[in-house]
Amino acid sequence: MMMAIAMKRAAAAAATRAISTANSGSILTRHLHASSGKKKIVGVFYKAHEYAEMNPNFVGCAENALGIRNWLESQGHEYIVTDDKEGPDCELEKHIPDLHVLITTPFHPAYVTAERIKKAKNLQLLLTAGIGSDHVDLKAAAAAGLTVAEVTGSNTVSVAEDELMRILILVRNFLPGHHQVISGDWNVAGIAHRAYDLEGKTVGTVGCGRIGRLLLQRLKPFGCNLLYHDRIQMDSELENQIGATFEEDLDKMLPKCDIIVINTPLTEKTKGMFDKERIGKLKKGVLIVNNARGAIMDTQAVVDGCNSGHIGGYSGDVWYPQPAPKDHPWRYMPNQAMTPHISGTTIDAQLRYAAGVKDMLENYFKGEEFPPQHYIVKEGELASQYR
Amino acid sequence: MMMAIAMKRAAAAAATRAISTANSGSILTRHLHASSGKKKIVGVFYKAHEYAEMNPNFVGCAENALGIRNWLESQGHEYIVTDDKEGPDCELEKHIPDLHVLITTPFHPAYVTAERIKKAKNLQLLLTAGIGSDHVDLKAAAAAGLTVAEVTGSNTVSVAEDELMRILILVRNFLPGHHQVISGDWNVAGIAHRAYDLEGKTVGTVGCGRIGRLLLQRLKPFGCNLLYHDRIQMDSELENQIGATFEEDLDKMLPKCDIIVINTPLTEKTKGMFDKERIGKLKKGVLIVNNARGAIMDTQAVVDGCNSGHIGGYSGDVWYPQPAPKDHPWRYMPNQAMTPHISGTTIDAQLRYAAGVKDMLENYFKGEEFPPQHYIVKEGELASQYR
Repeated sequence: MMMAIAMKRAAAAAATRAISTANSGSILTRHLHASSGKKKIVGVFYKAHEYAEMNPNFVGCAENALGIRNWLESQGHEYIVTDDKEGPDCELEKHIPDLHVLITTPFHPAYVTAERIKKAKNLQLLLTAGIGSDHVDLKAAAAAGLTVAEVTGSNTVSVAEDELMRILILVRNFLPGHHQVISGDWNVAGIAHRAYDLEGKTVGTVGCGRIGRLLLQRLKPFGCNLLYHDRIQMDSELENQIGATFEEDLDKMLPKCDIIVINTPLTEKTKGMFDKERIGKLKKGVLIVNNARGAIMDTQAVVDGCNSGHIGGYSGDVWYPQPAPKDHPWRYMPNQAMTPHISGTTIDAQLRYAAGVKDMLENYFKGEEFPPQHYIVKEGELASQYR
Repeated sequence: MMMAIAMKRAAAAAATRAISTANSGSILTRHLHASSGKKKIVGVFYKAHEYAEMNPNFVGCAENALGIRNWLESQGHEYIVTDDKEGPDCELEKHIPDLHVLITTPFHPAYVTAERIKKAKNLQLLLTAGIGSDHVDLKAAAAAGLTVAEVTGSNTVSVAEDELMRILILVRNFLPGHHQVISGDWNVAGIAHRAYDLEGKTVGTVGCGRIGRLLLQRLKPFGCNLLYHDRIQMDSELENQIGATFEEDLDKMLPKCDIIVINTPLTEKTKGMFDKERIGKLKKGVLIVNNARGAIMDTQAVVDGCNSGHIGGYSGDVWYPQPAPKDHPWRYMPNQAMTPHISGTTIDAQLRYAAGVKDMLENYFKGEEFPPQHYIVKEGELASQYR
């Protein structure tokens, strides 16, 4: 423990030396942690308007700004917060040329393109308040020597719980029943003819990292047949404890599933992976839960599947782009149980990712390392799940 | 095992003797199983209309009549099925004077009043396809020497799963998000300011019979603080395995709970037990899930609690009366996640309770006993949970 700290300090000292000697704009200066000087930090969060004051723990909105404004300003840093993130005249764009740190979230993503990275001459650090940094051009960030980090683990439980809720909502055909209530109807048959128990059904997760595992653990007492596909098989002790079966070949697993849950990051490989052809091979009436990223699905293929009944239900909180436009077809397809991007931004999650961002900023100011699992881009390298 | 069967046969033989010798209309003739003769059986189920043919396993509706018509008629019994159950001119009323067996469900309850029991001179057996026989005047049934039985266990898993779904829907504030989607909006803050994780919250179940235990088992991996109140404490091995704490005093448990789930039958004691006073003592913002019976709540007290925000959310599938009229105030109160009575009538549950009803009819025709846990009224005595 003491040794680790000593090593971190040494690394930080090296970083300080590197910054003071290297040329501005080189990979070296940009990826290493700055240890001194007043910084310009920009945060992009969703606006809460009248909701901002309703809950003192609602720290994830633009108004409450992760609850770190006083802390940052008391140390002389500048802290700009906005929700205005799109187009050449937006508030974010104004600050791109001179910001040092940009804090973003997946819930209201500021798309950090190669172009923006190029313009951001002082940028050193991109922090994601939450999990999922695909709104950042990670290759461009790596090439520019930036550090990208997220608060790994901050909302994995939040998302896993939400996925289990969505599985139940689809399997049990909740929404048609609720719509009957608010429209003054009562027609049990209209719900029951396609309402099932989760017990005994086959559930497969595509990707089984932190969230996938938490989901499987929560599914265990439901008496399902649990399958998972991932790059790596769990160690056999964990696998036995969770009670799930590894499926090396995704396309052999998928047609077995009554319910498919997407738990893989958005990468070049996973983008559009659920296209017409792959959906066509799924069980008729399959239920799909996707809280990972909207772009993993082919938008129109999902719509067609829901319209034909080949997909029996689709639920998730992720869309492309976000916010979803008013005419996004997933709003209007049958048997959808969609919401805006919300699962990872519960009040509990906000408190955790706000604390995680604060900790990383503190490390950054001191020139210290972050917890290793938080790095998405470090020293020009992408974290394994994004490769 | 062999001995138990031998004892049952002896009991059945005794029953047959009793029927053949006792006077018509006495307690003895009516509560014992008839072993001979063609019977008139009436079933009251919800109509499915166009949905009846959509799923071959949709046996719980009036059209598909538990899938036992051919079986009954091939043995010469008469089988009348209807959904028309209210008022003096309804179809059910016509058959009351001469039916021998009445099959009802909690989802579309035929209220078996003392008056109807008095008129039903040939009635011997009341079977509930499902669980929950409070739509029968059990005291009147006992006094008349009828047998009342339900398919205990047939849909306990179905209801427990549904309760967990409702807990998550309320805790995570699902419905406002879904309503945004269908109305073309996107306002993450409008959802997030009152969305929480289930992890770490205190969940208490009022009543911890079969359904309550299944719920607690499914809640275990969520990392909650689990409490239960019941007449009887679980044995300590089961209690440890489930990880829940017994609360002898209901009113000491309730104010500790972030989430309260009702898992107690409707009896004289539980009717209206959640009145204005008791609700007033709950935690501000408490979430309540009630898939037990609507009449356990004081209807207006729930409405007032939701309107004031003292109740943060209310979800259930039970109402009084059922079907809920168009102007039932629970349809219109804020933060409700209600459905029609559906949780125990999934396709999986229907197959189980249809099989259970068939088994009991078979026993009845043979003059044999039912599985002991199925009896609600037997030989003039109410099952313990209904006393």
